[in-house]
Amino acid sequence: MIQPMPFYGGIDLGGTKIQAVILDDNNDVLGSARRPTPTSGGPADVAAEMAIALRDAAKAAEVEPAALAGVGVGSPGTIDGGSVTSARNLPGWEGTFPLARTLQDELGCEVTLGNDVQVASEAEFRLGAGRLYSSLLVVSWGTGVGGGLILDRKPWRGRGGAGEIGHVVVEINGARCTCGRRGCMEAYAGRAAMEAHVRKLHEQRGRKTDLFKLMKEHDRTRLTSGIWARALEHGDKLAIQVIDRAVSALGAGIASAVNVLDLEGVIITGGLGIRLGHPYAKQIAAAMQPHLFIDSRPPHVHVAALGDLGGATGAALLVEHDREQALSA
Amino acid sequence: MIQPMPFYGGIDLGGTKIQAVILDDNNDVLGSARRPTPTSGGPADVAAEMAIALRDAAKAAEVEPAALAGVGVGSPGTIDGGSVTSARNLPGWEGTFPLARTLQDELGCEVTLGNDVQVASEAEFRLGAGRLYSSLLVVSWGTGVGGGLILDRKPWRGRGGAGEIGHVVVEINGARCTCGRRGCMEAYAGRAAMEAHVRKLHEQRGRKTDLFKLMKEHDRTRLTSGIWARALEHGDKLAIQVIDRAVSALGAGIASAVNVLDLEGVIITGGLGIRLGHPYAKQIAAAMQPHLFIDSRPPHVHVAALGDLGGATGAALLVEHDREQALSA
Repeated sequence: MIQPMPFYGGIDLGGTKIQAVILDDNNDVLGSARRPTPTSGGPADVAAEMAIALRDAAKAAEVEPAALAGVGVGSPGTIDGGSVTSARNLPGWEGTFPLARTLQDELGCEVTLGNDVQVASEAEFRLGAGRLYSSLLVVSWGTGVGGGLILDRKPWRGRGGAGEIGHVVVEINGARCTCGRRGCMEAYAGRAAMEAHVRKLHEQRGRKTDLFKLMKEHDRTRLTSGIWARALEHGDKLAIQVIDRAVSALGAGIASAVNVLDLEGVIITGGLGIRLGHPYAKQIAAAMQPHLFIDSRPPHVHVAALGDLGGATGAALLVEHDREQALSA
Repeated sequence: MIQPMPFYGGIDLGGTKIQAVILDDNNDVLGSARRPTPTSGGPADVAAEMAIALRDAAKAAEVEPAALAGVGVGSPGTIDGGSVTSARNLPGWEGTFPLARTLQDELGCEVTLGNDVQVASEAEFRLGAGRLYSSLLVVSWGTGVGGGLILDRKPWRGRGGAGEIGHVVVEINGARCTCGRRGCMEAYAGRAAMEAHVRKLHEQRGRKTDLFKLMKEHDRTRLTSGIWARALEHGDKLAIQVIDRAVSALGAGIASAVNVLDLEGVIITGGLGIRLGHPYAKQIAAAMQPHLFIDSRPPHVHVAALGDLGGATGAALLVEHDREQALSA
């Protein structure tokens, strides 16, 4: 029997947005859709938005969700089979939620879960800016700061929790992180931490900035990557100062990982990483340089080539991977 | 023809001491000898002391150096074939010196060079405290702070320079490191940096300590691991403070590596690590804990089981490795 050419769905569940894509067998994007991540409610509300995003992408690709070979999901939090536990940065998601089963019932096709940053990393390694390298750190600079490692052309997950580059210590007894610890890179560079920091400087210390005015003008409830980008373009001094502090922390933390692993490449992705793009990847590379033990051959630093769609594309690759294993079994 | 049972020589070239061993085919130690590393002169003087140490060990093992299957050397600096370049912490060794050929001519047997911390790490993984783990960071806490990584049961060297855990950043714009950079873990935890720090506090700021008195009493020219250990035993307040600062830096830096790699085990070796032993390995584990992203299952932290002989034993394993490759070719 000749199989019809399979289509794959992928959903990237981020702290700010939900991105869905439909890919064909050549990993070409047939359709995509995006929705904001709910800021209130709970896991069921988030899952409902994810299903809508996937259906919208399927509609754009002119395919029924139930006809997909499967849907992959890149999720924050702890993935255990079909469940997601304590997905920080998502509303009311401290406990365990059966995300795969919920989406399966909703969409009528198989759903596979993976770690959001790990799937995005594998997409950049297989299809994006990491294709030339055998060892790679993908840094997701967004609401939080996550990471994915490729070592010797294979994902490195350690005991399942590797890649937490956002929680590398850059200042002993430093700033309080959203994770509760002190001095983590994310405490300086995560979008959520940067927003809290700049709000304090603005509201409590009277520092001037247009960030919150821009936020209201663009009808946002938080300082999105786009708001930061606009403030930087306008030369907003406080925005520049807080981004410089983030870049300095990213430089130190990524250089630390490079000193331990002597990696060939570093890929910057995530909401801020993609939106701020090449000039800021160059700044991060410059901020790494003074901390690199072997400074004569720094790793190559790139912005993610798959852009905004990297996470969802990587999620779709989860389905391909499952399918290849099933076909070869 | 029946081969006689081969014996192997190993030399560990440290910043403070040169340790030599002779091993049999079961990796049992037949003889060992130790000499202080010269503090003046140049590479040729260091090589001459290395040859004496190896001859002394061979004498204890009742074997002629020329009858050895080979001698392995664990060296600091950059190893390129038979040469060693810019071995910091060794006198006058900024340039390149043909160490293998010099020792070969002197001893009458083949000499193989390897990175000091990498060979010590492999010895702990194959024969010591790391045997139970498939992923491992070996931290050499001595004159400097070095590291060796075992990932998926194999040494991970990156592009050749991996394992520089001593130069993980623990304080952006922090203390000046012996490497010239700022805020490296070694700037707080390396024996050389600790000595410079305590000397400044004592001589310039009038802080009281018995460290320098103990140094003179024991006829040393620097604060060796043994001097630090004695001062701690005596309850010397400044010594305790400076060691606590080192332990705090080690905790943050090692935890950073664990957050990125999610390792199963951490082995503490090196002059200070071995001399201070289990109670301080426990303190390092405690200092890691507040920085571990997954704090519910910290890695196991051990003192190196091969103790002072780990580096030299690992160096001898280089010869076995060469020999196995030659026999199987």
